[in-house]
Amino acid sequence: MKVKLAKNYGFCFGVRRAIKLAESKPNGITLGPLIHNAKEIERLKENFNVVVNENIQEIPKDSEVIIRTHGIPKQDLELLKQKTKNITDATCPFVTKPQEICEKMSAEGYQIIIFGDEKHPEVKGVMSYCKNTPLVIEDLMALKNSKIQEKVALISQTTKNIESFLQIVDFLVRNCAECRVFNTICNATFDNQESARNLAKEVDIMIIVGGKNSSNTKQLYNISKEYCKDCYLIEDYLELRKSWFDGKKLCGVSAGASTPNWIIDKVVQDIEKL
Amino acid sequence: MKVKLAKNYGFCFGVRRAIKLAESKPNGITLGPLIHNAKEIERLKENFNVVVNENIQEIPKDSEVIIRTHGIPKQDLELLKQKTKNITDATCPFVTKPQEICEKMSAEGYQIIIFGDEKHPEVKGVMSYCKNTPLVIEDLMALKNSKIQEKVALISQTTKNIESFLQIVDFLVRNCAECRVFNTICNATFDNQESARNLAKEVDIMIIVGGKNSSNTKQLYNISKEYCKDCYLIEDYLELRKSWFDGKKLCGVSAGASTPNWIIDKVVQDIEKL
Repeated sequence: MKVKLAKNYGFCFGVRRAIKLAESKPNGITLGPLIHNAKEIERLKENFNVVVNENIQEIPKDSEVIIRTHGIPKQDLELLKQKTKNITDATCPFVTKPQEICEKMSAEGYQIIIFGDEKHPEVKGVMSYCKNTPLVIEDLMALKNSKIQEKVALISQTTKNIESFLQIVDFLVRNCAECRVFNTICNATFDNQESARNLAKEVDIMIIVGGKNSSNTKQLYNISKEYCKDCYLIEDYLELRKSWFDGKKLCGVSAGASTPNWIIDKVVQDIEKL
Repeated sequence: MKVKLAKNYGFCFGVRRAIKLAESKPNGITLGPLIHNAKEIERLKENFNVVVNENIQEIPKDSEVIIRTHGIPKQDLELLKQKTKNITDATCPFVTKPQEICEKMSAEGYQIIIFGDEKHPEVKGVMSYCKNTPLVIEDLMALKNSKIQEKVALISQTTKNIESFLQIVDFLVRNCAECRVFNTICNATFDNQESARNLAKEVDIMIIVGGKNSSNTKQLYNISKEYCKDCYLIEDYLELRKSWFDGKKLCGVSAGASTPNWIIDKVVQDIEKL
């Protein structure tokens, strides 16, 4: 089977930075998974004894703690600071930005609208910086059913789809006097999405490699699926099924921003052998 | 010929207000035409001796001066104030708003982008309130050829088409970190456009009544033309041609925001007689 990789795929700046920081703090604890990729988390544990703990209460006093790429809620950061001074902030700078925007815009009296998944840790963190209750919407429909004020500030979860974000902008501009739009979708997300879209158009089958709890990986899957109906999301080579490739000639591969190269390489090698 | 009027058409709040103000100042001078409708300007002259003068230099000291609905440049207002204290401001409040936004946003360091026609008096007035040079664009193409900064504030000439405005928003959101969108398209414009669009879909011929130098009238014509190929823009009943109506059953009529009812009524009566 012939394999073609997307022009842009895999590790983004924020993930690369977070892993480097975690590797520099052996025996550290990350508050929740550092990135959304179970295999890479396992590797950090095996090679550096960097472990995950979801619960602040359980973290021993004065531990070495690493804040995950997705950021954490403001309140949790305050609790954490009471426990330890040894905090390494691996929050992606592209996530710190919407946190700051929320804080500033809510203080200025704007209704904050966040395009994102309110259960996602990044969004939970960003929400915590609002001085009033933000409106979190997963899609245009949710927005249409919500009460919108005259002056709104809109931000996006960094890993969302630009096309859907623009539909939301469109609706808000029609219905508000002032809509302050902060395009907080990160460039890596945007580039990976564009590349996946283009690749999906020309191949017979698309394989997306990444964590199943990873927002940006799911976006890549959804976008590719629009253009290539035979599209599969896998975490590693073990999930590949020979039958998927029957009668196919060209296989496209892309990967989420938290998928390390060693996982992608193994997937590509295995497909090429088919 | 059967005639159907658009649900919303003709005089808007700002024009109605301006005419009332002008009627209350007999013998007054308007700096440029009060509204973009030559027939109504004629009526104001005949009935109230309200005359038009385009040139500030020619206006006698201490005259009664009325500022047109479209507003005037800030510098002209200052010159005028040196000549007379008797100034009646008939600037539409929906035009005063973008003037204020430009002043504020340019002071805050935003690049000002105005969607509009830089030769139109409203836009000339709005531009004059910017502390830096604004970018005035007539369409998306002009924007694509321009240099765009990281932080922009976008406003629209009050009479522009919302669909084109949204295309511009779309492009800016993709290309700027922050895009502050002020939907300054006035409601009357929006309602008249929506109504014309709906009516054009169901009739055999559309007649748009209004001044040929009127921006909002031209928009109505362009929108209607998209849905009804037999579409004509006329200033009054004298321009109607019998041949246009051959084989047609239902005629739609709409009119610009500066078109008085007495002109529209005459047009409707004449078409009905055909």
